[in-house]
Amino acid sequence: MFHVNENFLKIPGSYLFAEIAQRVQRFRNSHPETELIRLGIGDVTQPLVPAVIDALHRGVEEMAHRETFKGYGPDYGYDFLIQAILKGDYESRGICLDRDELFISDGSKCDVGSIQELFSPDARIAVTDPVYPVYVDSNAMAGRAGDFTGDHWNRIVYLPCSAENGFVPEMPQEPVDVLYLCYPNNPTGTVLTREQLQHIVEWARKEHVLIIYDAAYRAYITTEGIPGSIYEIPGAEEVAIECCSFSKTAGFTGTRCAYMVIPHAVKGMDEKGRLVELNGLWKRRTSTKFNGVSYPVQCGAAAVFSPEGQVQIRKVIAGYMKNAAIIREGLTRRGYEVWGGKDAPYIWLKIPGHQTSWDFFDVLLEKAGVVGTPGSGFGPCGEGYFRLTAFNTEEATRAAMERFSRI
Amino acid sequence: MFHVNENFLKIPGSYLFAEIAQRVQRFRNSHPETELIRLGIGDVTQPLVPAVIDALHRGVEEMAHRETFKGYGPDYGYDFLIQAILKGDYESRGICLDRDELFISDGSKCDVGSIQELFSPDARIAVTDPVYPVYVDSNAMAGRAGDFTGDHWNRIVYLPCSAENGFVPEMPQEPVDVLYLCYPNNPTGTVLTREQLQHIVEWARKEHVLIIYDAAYRAYITTEGIPGSIYEIPGAEEVAIECCSFSKTAGFTGTRCAYMVIPHAVKGMDEKGRLVELNGLWKRRTSTKFNGVSYPVQCGAAAVFSPEGQVQIRKVIAGYMKNAAIIREGLTRRGYEVWGGKDAPYIWLKIPGHQTSWDFFDVLLEKAGVVGTPGSGFGPCGEGYFRLTAFNTEEATRAAMERFSRI
Repeated sequence: MFHVNENFLKIPGSYLFAEIAQRVQRFRNSHPETELIRLGIGDVTQPLVPAVIDALHRGVEEMAHRETFKGYGPDYGYDFLIQAILKGDYESRGICLDRDELFISDGSKCDVGSIQELFSPDARIAVTDPVYPVYVDSNAMAGRAGDFTGDHWNRIVYLPCSAENGFVPEMPQEPVDVLYLCYPNNPTGTVLTREQLQHIVEWARKEHVLIIYDAAYRAYITTEGIPGSIYEIPGAEEVAIECCSFSKTAGFTGTRCAYMVIPHAVKGMDEKGRLVELNGLWKRRTSTKFNGVSYPVQCGAAAVFSPEGQVQIRKVIAGYMKNAAIIREGLTRRGYEVWGGKDAPYIWLKIPGHQTSWDFFDVLLEKAGVVGTPGSGFGPCGEGYFRLTAFNTEEATRAAMERFSRI
Repeated sequence: MFHVNENFLKIPGSYLFAEIAQRVQRFRNSHPETELIRLGIGDVTQPLVPAVIDALHRGVEEMAHRETFKGYGPDYGYDFLIQAILKGDYESRGICLDRDELFISDGSKCDVGSIQELFSPDARIAVTDPVYPVYVDSNAMAGRAGDFTGDHWNRIVYLPCSAENGFVPEMPQEPVDVLYLCYPNNPTGTVLTREQLQHIVEWARKEHVLIIYDAAYRAYITTEGIPGSIYEIPGAEEVAIECCSFSKTAGFTGTRCAYMVIPHAVKGMDEKGRLVELNGLWKRRTSTKFNGVSYPVQCGAAAVFSPEGQVQIRKVIAGYMKNAAIIREGLTRRGYEVWGGKDAPYIWLKIPGHQTSWDFFDVLLEKAGVVGTPGSGFGPCGEGYFRLTAFNTEEATRAAMERFSRI
């Protein structure tokens, strides 16, 4: 008899966005006249920029003619895109990488979800709390998370991030093998200074911990000196894998393109105590289970790094960050304590009084017709907080802030 | 100290195509005047058809305007594409599926590589020999294959397919949990009749074995009555998962789109003996580790099922199948014993005398300047056989057959 992977059965349903959808639907049924404003979802709303659109069309047109048609591409990505990323995202930061240290993929969710395939089955995983759920769930599916007890997994090490520690995680006392970090952070919108990140890298080097660094929001950094890549910290290239994506940088959430850096110097130990490059293991994994990213999409992604592309995406990001400022100022003026929104498209607010995240969700929905995301959905330490996003239009964002006066 | 997944280290290098590339390079260096003809690679060469190109352009154009821009799509695929596949590929065969039994992905390699995540860690895997290596390697990475000893894995059950049994695998005597099948077959180009497939489905139902059915080449079937989907066999919907792709059907090897069917009736057992739907487990897996296929690509894939799209892709496939007939006839006339090429783009030939597959590769390369694929690269039972593909141009295919007279 065929038996299933038992670990899947331990995972609680993904209730957060389903629960939000249900409550919103109930409200709409009882208040059909209210126009809702959504500041909840982390999806972009502005169209792809002209430079990207042109490159996508050109890529499609190449597929129409025998002379320029592209069949299977390189599993790890086309050289023209790899070179564009190395130059635009790394050399520009003074970071020198080999071309075979960068892998093109169809999404950071896929990369951060699959990288755990390279870890030993009993690797101890540490994550910040609150956290992007994929880091935890992908390890739970592979049996590394233990059992889910109420609000956490008993084999995952959670590093609390709250107002009390300025959202800077303290490194664990107990031994761990892998640490997932996302900075600028989803959901809190906070960042680490160079010194804070350096401290973590030094700890990882000393303790031989692998860091999975998710830099999906780095294009939103505006504060001088905040690292946009973990490789800005010397020595990080020996302990860190870094993911980034075109989703938030260039509006590719529905177009799908991302990349992951695995330096040759990042190594793990095998049973016999020999060091093994993770780069080689990922190559093997990729060539077995992946067939590369759509050619026209890679053309579009490369255009992000053209001079026009850069000007155009900067303008879109500036628009989102204007919304972030509107939210920050609007909330601050109303007496809320807020974080994020300076170097990230997320604003994390402290809920006044003793309301839970879901209480506040209901109040905001019912009195103001504004939809956000309850902080507790991202982990126990998110309780008492609430996430708003800067991805709606300026008009809707301003209107949402007006409506905050109703609560 | 971070430890790696030890199973990766057991996997021998993927030498087949690297070795081919090396030998070809060596030959080119010593025979710069010879123009090589490649009948080795399983990649298409004809451009995307006009209906698909138009739909891709339209999809890209929608991404350029705020009103029609698409952010994150549904994890399991857009309804317009799911409905087009259900109608075009299933209802047309008299197969009725629920819309949530079909999942859109970026490639069958990804699907067949990842489906094993749903199996218990100790599931016993059976494959045909010769075999598409992804079925074996993806299970080896998860620790289900045991150890690699010379030319096979000691926990994988291999079902020999050779001229002796007409390339129809005999079901194993020992207990297995999962059987991977690919029909029309890569690499042999052979098919199963309805009766043969029915026999396997009945065995799987009796023995509670899960079948992973890879139907990537079904668009090439020309013989009346050969099943294009395993669900044409009554009862298969309780034991079989089916994969198919736009790669060979519509030339999407570089454009990337595929789909997998997991009927609700397909179940596995948990530790407590309860039955669990694999459909639900795959939904959970997909929403955790995948973010959907590029929107313009899904538009292009849907256009394959339009009346113009169907006419256009049929013409391309007919062209490839004309090449297959040229190869079959050319080889038969020269006294070779051949299989495949009637319902598949692959031709599998018996190597005359006692030459090994690699001996024949060298002779064909050196005397005729033709590149093929040694059968032993697909498994021990492929020794003594050789694969040619129908994906080159008619002109090159005819020239290759002429050159066979030199050996």
